Amino acid sequence: MAEPIDHLIHALSKLPSIGGKSAQRLAFHILRAPNEYARELADAIMSVKQEMRSCQVCQAPSHKDPCTLCSDPRRDAERICVVEEPADVSAIEKTGVYRGKYHVLHGRLSPLDGITPQDLKIDALIRRLQSGPCREVILATNPNVEGEATATYIAGLLRPFGSQITRLASGMPLGAEVEYIDCQTLAVALESRRAL
Amino acid sequence: MAEPIDHLIHALSKLPSIGGKSAQRLAFHILRAPNEYARELADAIMSVKQEMRSCQVCQAPSHKDPCTLCSDPRRDAERICVVEEPADVSAIEKTGVYRGKYHVLHGRLSPLDGITPQDLKIDALIRRLQSGPCREVILATNPNVEGEATATYIAGLLRPFGSQITRLASGMPLGAEVEYIDCQTLAVALESRRAL
Repeated sequence: MAEPIDHLIHALSKLPSIGGKSAQRLAFHILRAPNEYARELADAIMSVKQEMRSCQVCQAPSHKDPCTLCSDPRRDAERICVVEEPADVSAIEKTGVYRGKYHVLHGRLSPLDGITPQDLKIDALIRRLQSGPCREVILATNPNVEGEATATYIAGLLRPFGSQITRLASGMPLGAEVEYIDCQTLAVALESRRAL
Repeated sequence: MAEPIDHLIHALSKLPSIGGKSAQRLAFHILRAPNEYARELADAIMSVKQEMRSCQVCQAPSHKDPCTLCSDPRRDAERICVVEEPADVSAIEKTGVYRGKYHVLHGRLSPLDGITPQDLKIDALIRRLQSGPCREVILATNPNVEGEATATYIAGLLRPFGSQITRLASGMPLGAEVEYIDCQTLAVALESRRAL
């Protein structure tokens, strides 16, 4: 195989969930694609690195500081949804049901991986609560061991501020089947059953 | 979401088998990755487009003409393995059992998609056979309707040159189970059974 295509395959295979075969398929696709597309992709990669910084309010990556969401006066500034990663913001925005602000932790507590509270953007969250009124903090970390531990830890720190502290509901995902859902989810769904 | 990351997600989602979610995950990975990696990836994309051309002998993409394989004197020049796509060359090279040359058709006959013999690098293959001796042509197109039709068509054109014309064996892939293998493959494996 010729050199430049090998370099590209090598670089692509370092991306998450892109194995050797996928990297090869993507590389040959780029080789066949119009020059304009290759230029667009290469430019987009470089401008993400050059133009993106962190919003100093919510800590999400953004090309503006404060970011578009934090500077939008139509959004409820007294409601903060705390998420682990920037992609979680996109996921929640797509639901269209949340009109408050966000706070990105950039991770979750994970002592085994050496990730402690100092590694997360928890100080910045506390400063936000100190600097203005907040009615509700939604702790939208993932419903797994690390996400729960992170939520519990942050909830403890936030109690003194008097905001309501909530957590995403756990239970059956829509479309799931009782027969096939995992046992732990079914147990939670039973325990949290609601009156009709 | 901020602009540059959206551009990157959009550009990545045009790649084959990269959906919106994957594009987002890749984009955030690139955002977090070191600047050197982003530079390496962007440069690799551009140099593939700028430096890769076609080997005028085997038609494979290469930064040299003739390519490394075609100009390797240790490879058997009187044996040509005809494949549909450049990635097929890599797959066969990885087996380590073939020491001849290659010829890349860049596609397969597909009348429904408007792909006729003129769209494939068949003329170049004929010119190779006209210009020098060849003991064997291995038609390694895929074992499906279009690949078989392509092999049959090319075999007809090559008969006058007197080279042996062969086809990859069809049958049970190693590790497969008789119970679960598809019916057509099992039929071929039965018909082509070999003496022990």
